[in-house]
Amino acid sequence: MNAPSTMKPFRHVGTRPVRPDGVDKVTGKALYSTDFKAPGMLWGAILRSPHPHARILSIDTKKAEALAGVKAVATGRDLPTLESLVMHVGEGASDIVDVSHNCLALDKVLYEGHAVAAVAAASPEIAREALGLITVEYEELAFVLGLEEALAEGAPVLHDTVFTKGVDPKPDRPSNAAMRVEMGGGDVEGALASAAATVTGRYTLEPVHQGYIEPHACVASWNGDGQAQIWTSSQGHFAVRALTASVLAIPQADIRVTPLEIGGGFGGKTTVYLEPVAMVLSKKSGRPVRLAMTREEVFRATGPAPGAVIDVRLGAAADGTLVAADVEFLYHSGAYTANDAGAGVSSAIGHYRIPNSRVVGIEVLCNRPAAKAYRAPGAPQVNFAVESAMDELAGKLGIDPLELRLKNAAIEGDPQTTGLPWGRIGYVECLEAAKAHPHWSAPLGPNQGRGIAGGYWGNYGGPSTVNVSVAEDGTVTVATGSPDIGGSRASMAIMAAEVLDIPYEQVRAVVADTASIGVSMVTGGSRTTFATGMATVQAAEEVKRLLCERAARMWGVISDQVEWRSGEVICLDGEKQGQAMSAAAIAGRSFHSGGPIAAVAALSAKGWLPGFGVHICDTEVDPETGHVKIVRYTAVQDVGIAIHPDYVEGQIQGGAAQGIGWALNEAYIYGKDGKLDNAGFLDYRMPVASDLPMIEAVIVEVPNPSHPYGVKGVGEVPIVPPLAAVANAIHAAAGVRLKDLPMAPDRVYAALHPEG
Amino acid sequence: MNAPSTMKPFRHVGTRPVRPDGVDKVTGKALYSTDFKAPGMLWGAILRSPHPHARILSIDTKKAEALAGVKAVATGRDLPTLESLVMHVGEGASDIVDVSHNCLALDKVLYEGHAVAAVAAASPEIAREALGLITVEYEELAFVLGLEEALAEGAPVLHDTVFTKGVDPKPDRPSNAAMRVEMGGGDVEGALASAAATVTGRYTLEPVHQGYIEPHACVASWNGDGQAQIWTSSQGHFAVRALTASVLAIPQADIRVTPLEIGGGFGGKTTVYLEPVAMVLSKKSGRPVRLAMTREEVFRATGPAPGAVIDVRLGAAADGTLVAADVEFLYHSGAYTANDAGAGVSSAIGHYRIPNSRVVGIEVLCNRPAAKAYRAPGAPQVNFAVESAMDELAGKLGIDPLELRLKNAAIEGDPQTTGLPWGRIGYVECLEAAKAHPHWSAPLGPNQGRGIAGGYWGNYGGPSTVNVSVAEDGTVTVATGSPDIGGSRASMAIMAAEVLDIPYEQVRAVVADTASIGVSMVTGGSRTTFATGMATVQAAEEVKRLLCERAARMWGVISDQVEWRSGEVICLDGEKQGQAMSAAAIAGRSFHSGGPIAAVAALSAKGWLPGFGVHICDTEVDPETGHVKIVRYTAVQDVGIAIHPDYVEGQIQGGAAQGIGWALNEAYIYGKDGKLDNAGFLDYRMPVASDLPMIEAVIVEVPNPSHPYGVKGVGEVPIVPPLAAVANAIHAAAGVRLKDLPMAPDRVYAALHPEG
Repeated sequence: MNAPSTMKPFRHVGTRPVRPDGVDKVTGKALYSTDFKAPGMLWGAILRSPHPHARILSIDTKKAEALAGVKAVATGRDLPTLESLVMHVGEGASDIVDVSHNCLALDKVLYEGHAVAAVAAASPEIAREALGLITVEYEELAFVLGLEEALAEGAPVLHDTVFTKGVDPKPDRPSNAAMRVEMGGGDVEGALASAAATVTGRYTLEPVHQGYIEPHACVASWNGDGQAQIWTSSQGHFAVRALTASVLAIPQADIRVTPLEIGGGFGGKTTVYLEPVAMVLSKKSGRPVRLAMTREEVFRATGPAPGAVIDVRLGAAADGTLVAADVEFLYHSGAYTANDAGAGVSSAIGHYRIPNSRVVGIEVLCNRPAAKAYRAPGAPQVNFAVESAMDELAGKLGIDPLELRLKNAAIEGDPQTTGLPWGRIGYVECLEAAKAHPHWSAPLGPNQGRGIAGGYWGNYGGPSTVNVSVAEDGTVTVATGSPDIGGSRASMAIMAAEVLDIPYEQVRAVVADTASIGVSMVTGGSRTTFATGMATVQAAEEVKRLLCERAARMWGVISDQVEWRSGEVICLDGEKQGQAMSAAAIAGRSFHSGGPIAAVAALSAKGWLPGFGVHICDTEVDPETGHVKIVRYTAVQDVGIAIHPDYVEGQIQGGAAQGIGWALNEAYIYGKDGKLDNAGFLDYRMPVASDLPMIEAVIVEVPNPSHPYGVKGVGEVPIVPPLAAVANAIHAAAGVRLKDLPMAPDRVYAALHPEG
Repeated sequence: MNAPSTMKPFRHVGTRPVRPDGVDKVTGKALYSTDFKAPGMLWGAILRSPHPHARILSIDTKKAEALAGVKAVATGRDLPTLESLVMHVGEGASDIVDVSHNCLALDKVLYEGHAVAAVAAASPEIAREALGLITVEYEELAFVLGLEEALAEGAPVLHDTVFTKGVDPKPDRPSNAAMRVEMGGGDVEGALASAAATVTGRYTLEPVHQGYIEPHACVASWNGDGQAQIWTSSQGHFAVRALTASVLAIPQADIRVTPLEIGGGFGGKTTVYLEPVAMVLSKKSGRPVRLAMTREEVFRATGPAPGAVIDVRLGAAADGTLVAADVEFLYHSGAYTANDAGAGVSSAIGHYRIPNSRVVGIEVLCNRPAAKAYRAPGAPQVNFAVESAMDELAGKLGIDPLELRLKNAAIEGDPQTTGLPWGRIGYVECLEAAKAHPHWSAPLGPNQGRGIAGGYWGNYGGPSTVNVSVAEDGTVTVATGSPDIGGSRASMAIMAAEVLDIPYEQVRAVVADTASIGVSMVTGGSRTTFATGMATVQAAEEVKRLLCERAARMWGVISDQVEWRSGEVICLDGEKQGQAMSAAAIAGRSFHSGGPIAAVAALSAKGWLPGFGVHICDTEVDPETGHVKIVRYTAVQDVGIAIHPDYVEGQIQGGAAQGIGWALNEAYIYGKDGKLDNAGFLDYRMPVASDLPMIEAVIVEVPNPSHPYGVKGVGEVPIVPPLAAVANAIHAAAGVRLKDLPMAPDRVYAALHPEG
């Protein structure tokens, strides 16, 4: 499985050069968000609601303002009103109002930890002391945390809004159902009724946090003349600019956002929590202001992935051919509407050819922090249900679970759930690779079992801007607007070096600030290597064209009479035939031949293709404690083409590790008071190195024909299959099917000992 | 005098919007070079030679290295050798060797203050202590400071090199004559012999310092993997990158230079003194290293403008028509070859039509810090001589000095000293404006006199890269690679707003780092508003074209059927005829219409034109003390078109102030030991506000037809005429002609009282 035959052999693509961000990161030189300090900077802190749901009757900030060292205090009243946002933003104003109210609550707090006021002071100690001097008068309201509870008649309703998206008939009064999405077609009930085998199940998952190591933090400086600077780590500094400008109703160009290194995002750093607040505090104080969350704040106030309740029914013919699927789920939306239901619906069953299907997703508002994207947002939950059900179905049919999947696996041309045909996808290739992998046929020990699951994510393209420039010595810089989370500086340098056919070491890639380069969308949706890579290739091609043109001009020939070959321009004709000119020779004289060599590519990348993964998991279940040990784990994934396989493997390993955590241990635990009981890494149990075996990543390459180097994208897919892979392995090891995550020892023990 | 008739009336060009850098600078938020600190940063210090000329026999750094807290020590041995530079740089290696040896001396020190070793330590105190522990064994050599002394037989010769540039016949052994330039033509001696009136004079000037408020400083961080970052203030961060990479023989792309705000440069910050040294210390210590000069170090070790000895002969017919000029000068080059002689030759007499002329300039090496550019480098010195001589000639002929200049003033088509014809210059317009100005005919008081002088500077264009990008809300960012010294962020924003016909407040300009944008030449030579402005206009035009194209696509019409009008696209045809689409509407949907709107212009600007100035100065000379007071001062200058007149006036005022300082007070004073006696602002007397009247700047606009908005450039010209204008005013006030600068009270007194 290699690049398409139209792709020539690669010189750099697929190699594993030293990470350009490596030395800075391991020596501590890299500047993460809390490392940045501006001269004269103030320290901010945020007061958060102790109640899950309450009306704010009054906020008295006088005592805090009077404290020596306090330079500014802000509340929701300091942010522009809905009316001014409608004036400024136009049709998107309601989304922006949500962002605004999430940054600083206005009339109501909607979850424990909701920000209600902020302080900027000369020291962190003074800032914290000042928070204690702010008096907030609350009227506590009934709250709701559960999905079905939130939809029940008489449940406390969070917003006055009547949400109608996807709902028919339109509701006539506010409810907590924020969105409904339905896809599918055919005669589901008829097909299920006539199926040789059916399975039915209800699956539940708790919300889990992205668990990035670096908490949210920023420094903002907003001048009296309207100009501002923000230094922050995020998945998209252009998104930070756009959202902050929108929330504050100011021009985007007035804000220059400088990206700092990011210590993990996984979807959770695509919005703003702190930046607009730091801006307001800066304007009020006339000083740069730093805001940084504690770990506890991160848990209480930033977006987890939605928990879910999922009902699945599958039906198959006796030979294993799937005939029908019915999936209906509720996803937590938290305090504000999120957008995971649509992705959940389109990611549920599309990896199989199923003639009759119905998939319905509903997002449910409740008194939890607003849900945010987390690696393949919306997919792992529903995939857990569907791939568990597939396993059960294989058992009922007496068919090998891998063979059942292979038999029904979607291929190019098959319809997706949306009805559109699949492009050149690689699910079958992944299943075949899993089947051929030694892991699939390795012997198992006592209390051990092997599970398998497949899954996918649609990936994305979209807008990216890249500048490629040549220094006078012929070395090349690549500037993108895409924060480097999974190695994009390396992959962009590789792609530029590939285009120009020059040594990798002669290309350096950086992430440029919002004023220095054109707009790029967030690093997310597995889009960066695909879309920003496409822009890099396009800009590098333009640089190559410029270098050829300049050489031709210097030789006095027309551009057709030169050719780029091995990093040089070769003269094909005339007196200079056979002569070569290096990039250094051309760039060194570029000032006299028309100016510096620089190109920009700004595009909205199309032609992305989904990624598919198949994970094999061996577990050992301790019958006496219910503890589940992951004994061996292999993650097979079609990535299109792996530009820098080290990073690709790292992404696959990281996604699998996070999925295993979701499967076995992670969950938000709330008390009866509606408050989060485990807001810290001690009580919120993510897998650590000693919890996991070495996860083997197997790269399958079914190139994307729409990308110059065949890229599909990597980062999202690997979190999708682990939940069911682990559950299926537990079933194989211990004979019990767990349908509620996390499959922590107490639940496994209870399943093993139903007698109690 | 307005823009050419082909230029439509301007909406923004010529207005005076609020400075975008103003608030940051007056509130102290702006980050200048010593404000920047990197986490884990070490403090560097440099050991400098106490001798003006000596051989380095040995350097013992062991004790310094052993001092607790010292993390690295470097000497010239840590920089690449000549051989490796030849390998790396090629033909320019000898210039780079000079830069290298000036950063850290290798075998010889060539001036007092020459760097010989450097230390990086945990604190500035430890770094300074460590310097005292370094033992350098010197063999002192005879030194030479004076121009004629340095050329005399038997003078100590600084370099082994035989300099041959412009010298014919070629010398056969090393001397201190580093360069000779000659221009002119005709029969000078014949014309002088038959002239109705001639004047002859010898003029001398001392070296003077640029006197920028901010000393040189940088932070460098160089990793084990070769990648480096430098934060520094300079006139050109691309020049810092290129020079540092060359001195260290590493790829340019491995260094990312981030520009900080600059506190004045005036030509003196176009080279590197500290950056390569900080890089070496960083590599050795594994930590970011800061190096910053004290004021004393700035005086002792950074480039002053050359002092000079100038012989002038002028001849004219009885009606004042100039018939011949003979100018020969020596300029200090200091420790290494500089490049002021050529500019001095071409700036000497070209503002007049003189049929017979000979101008010779020679650069002389001596044991002073290497001369560096200072505002119109090479021009003020020779202009002082020529414009003083013109004044004397006017007196001899009995012709008004302004009329004498007007009679002989060069106009478009007249030959320059190089022989090439002048383009659309504005000397006559400046003389006419001066003549018409109330100052020229205002009454004078006792002991007062009025002087006038004209002068010019060639200006420049050259390479600049500009990125213009549109945010989703239609606001615009302009990124340049040109450090903003004289207001270029404002002028670029004005020009982009002019092209796009949108409010100035919707455009924000920044200076981007070397990795984020393509190459630009230094901010110097009065090139930035011209060349970078031309690139800004070109990139903004491309953005306009893209916006039109996108709108047409959205309307489903061809590009010819739309037009840009008042910041919007108008549909000219079809169903949508008459409809308008704003930049915000187009950019807001740009992700779906082809990607972000971004353009780059990388050009080498041609068509620059020189600037001419005419200064009128009134002095009052105290006959009892010799003190000269500047009573009134008017500086008239043709700038092409003034983009932001506030900054233009500021440049003119600043240049005039510096020229007055050169005329009256400033000079390097050396002791007999070859050491500088006045290395500080207390003893090196620059004019302060109380020394000067309000300098009136009169803007003359003779547009440059080669620039879209008529720009010529501003910054250099205003330092050219003041030296002679002041001298001529002193002659008018007190009847004495001073030919040696500075015209400090002791010299004026001596001239007034020749009896002694």
